[in-house]
Amino acid sequence: MAAPFTDAEIETIRAATPGCRDELIHLNHAGSSLPAQTVLDAQIEHLQREATIGGYEAAAATAAEREQTYESIAALLGAKRNEIARFEHATAAWSAAFWSIPMQPGQAIITHDHDYGANAVAMLHAAATRGVRIVRVPSDAVGQIDLAALAAALDDPDGVALVSLAWIPTNGGLVNPAAAVGALTRAAGVPFLLDACQAVGQLVIDVDTIGCDFLSGTGRKYLRGPRGTGFLYVRESILDRVVPSHPDHHSAEWTTLDTYTFEPGATRFEYWEFSHANWLGLGAAVDVALDLGVDRIQTAIARRAKDLRAGLSGIGMEVHDEGIARCGIVTATHPTLASDVVQARLAEQRINTSVTHVGSSRADVERRDLAPMLRLSAHCTTTAAEVDHVCSTLAEL
Amino acid sequence: MAAPFTDAEIETIRAATPGCRDELIHLNHAGSSLPAQTVLDAQIEHLQREATIGGYEAAAATAAEREQTYESIAALLGAKRNEIARFEHATAAWSAAFWSIPMQPGQAIITHDHDYGANAVAMLHAAATRGVRIVRVPSDAVGQIDLAALAAALDDPDGVALVSLAWIPTNGGLVNPAAAVGALTRAAGVPFLLDACQAVGQLVIDVDTIGCDFLSGTGRKYLRGPRGTGFLYVRESILDRVVPSHPDHHSAEWTTLDTYTFEPGATRFEYWEFSHANWLGLGAAVDVALDLGVDRIQTAIARRAKDLRAGLSGIGMEVHDEGIARCGIVTATHPTLASDVVQARLAEQRINTSVTHVGSSRADVERRDLAPMLRLSAHCTTTAAEVDHVCSTLAEL
Repeated sequence: MAAPFTDAEIETIRAATPGCRDELIHLNHAGSSLPAQTVLDAQIEHLQREATIGGYEAAAATAAEREQTYESIAALLGAKRNEIARFEHATAAWSAAFWSIPMQPGQAIITHDHDYGANAVAMLHAAATRGVRIVRVPSDAVGQIDLAALAAALDDPDGVALVSLAWIPTNGGLVNPAAAVGALTRAAGVPFLLDACQAVGQLVIDVDTIGCDFLSGTGRKYLRGPRGTGFLYVRESILDRVVPSHPDHHSAEWTTLDTYTFEPGATRFEYWEFSHANWLGLGAAVDVALDLGVDRIQTAIARRAKDLRAGLSGIGMEVHDEGIARCGIVTATHPTLASDVVQARLAEQRINTSVTHVGSSRADVERRDLAPMLRLSAHCTTTAAEVDHVCSTLAEL
Repeated sequence: MAAPFTDAEIETIRAATPGCRDELIHLNHAGSSLPAQTVLDAQIEHLQREATIGGYEAAAATAAEREQTYESIAALLGAKRNEIARFEHATAAWSAAFWSIPMQPGQAIITHDHDYGANAVAMLHAAATRGVRIVRVPSDAVGQIDLAALAAALDDPDGVALVSLAWIPTNGGLVNPAAAVGALTRAAGVPFLLDACQAVGQLVIDVDTIGCDFLSGTGRKYLRGPRGTGFLYVRESILDRVVPSHPDHHSAEWTTLDTYTFEPGATRFEYWEFSHANWLGLGAAVDVALDLGVDRIQTAIARRAKDLRAGLSGIGMEVHDEGIARCGIVTATHPTLASDVVQARLAEQRINTSVTHVGSSRADVERRDLAPMLRLSAHCTTTAAEVDHVCSTLAEL
């Protein structure tokens, strides 16, 4: 494991982050994190460039920077540049992947009994419109996807269209064993779509180690990038087996009046238009993560989340987290107060948290009979003093 | 017709527009226009808010402003608020509409022999994957969609899935008779998808007068809004006949483990995540247009485009525009120089134009055997002196 950041290093990171400069305590990084000043600068500079010289002209002047965002994301994931597609958010990226995968009536879509609401709705829609079956693999004793059950599910007599997994679910602290899932899907020859929305920027990622065919990510969470940004990794070798569902004249060339040809690589999943300012901001955010070292960020988050879990338990909050290697997302309930009340009272004292919602994690909520939980998500900017202050504030509610 | 802006009014509009403050002449409004300072301010303020207090917390603080963007767009179109869906660009909006419309193998998709490249690729993909036939209605003697031919095409023995029309094509000056098309589609009971990408902010729009079922628009062109913004109008009465293709947990509620319910209204076409800053910027841009009066903007653009056509013809450029009521997009070729050369030389003299590309308008290019054309697009910020200067610069090339 990489060395944690020293207190001095944390202060340097915080000093470069506008949201860390006053008394606010932000424990909502799993919702939307706090960008570094360089991210904000990249966005604002480009918006001003567009307003001053024109949007197309500003784009022409920043081709290299735009390309660098792809290169940085590729470096973050251990991927090749032409395996990266630009999106406005993780859900658009995930959906583009999901709906590109051939599905035959009767085939199974395999997922974990802890998938994200957006993905769950898409799968139900696929069941309704394509006639596929949703197979929800149960959790094992520690809450991870049950690998033996997954292996059995992959041996489906009617075939499996894909495996979909949330690497880090939206709540519960869980880090699913993505690489173990990838080993099984590779052996079975089944496409593996990994939702890494909460993982990018939080965990060291290597797509070849994982063995996923698709990986969707967002900018605004642990990558500390802009809202309205995301990306999709598409393994080169899966391209021949999938068909983008909503192409335009950027994803495919209009070659003759009656023919079109998909672009090579992951570009075939992109639309032509996008917010250039946000894409440049995302590149700046990925560069911040790469400069700090994702391994060190991972260590820092894990350490602070552990502090937080211990602190919350110490004041009588019930922590509802699962898994072995727990992540920066901590979910807990107060012994007497409803979570929305707790969240509101913390907000009054300038402590940002969120509350889990059944629409985002119904399978987990029903399985564990969970009430709405307070979600506190730490990052490498979070200090030990902040954790202490939050716990003492909670103790006094 | 509304009164044109006086010179003093034009100067006021220009003074409020950062891109009009120096010697730049922008005739690329059909590519990406120049936003007002209020648009830029709305974006930058929100980005700073997000960076300072957190992205979710900034969203919670601006619910009313976000809602106002929907209300402003509804007012712009003569629509109801719940008929408006938020998108990142016109192509995403158009695609969401297009792929929601049921298509049976053998049915016709009717379009004009002048549709946009993005739409054309989508239609070819529908032909390849759904087995529909593309019926391209020819242009009449002035270049508009031939209404008699359209009426005949609508009487298709194998049925018609939809009619798709670019109200203002990407080049050629044409304004298609959208309301006449709407009258025919209404009578035939066929869904009418209107691409208004170049029309919003340029033409007075009333969706009931037009009779379209869907209308897609972008922010960055004649509305002078941010790049990476768009919207879709969805007529309330069409909702029961269409099914959004890529739902998430915002477009549909995850009601039980195995059920989901689409949201009422156009929200069912939206994803949950988006760039809040850009959406607020779009609202500011629409408000600028509403405050100036779209009728007056339309008059101003038409007048200046007429000046431009006359000026270009006067110096020996060949103008290739069609239609009766011509729009602000002027396409022309130089007697001796290739259009990309002309564009580059103008850019050296700080005059922004663009060059048409076959991938955006292949049907028109092949029908009229067009070489790449210089596209000069005027807006209400364009002065008579700018038009004179551009024409004299072109004359000296």
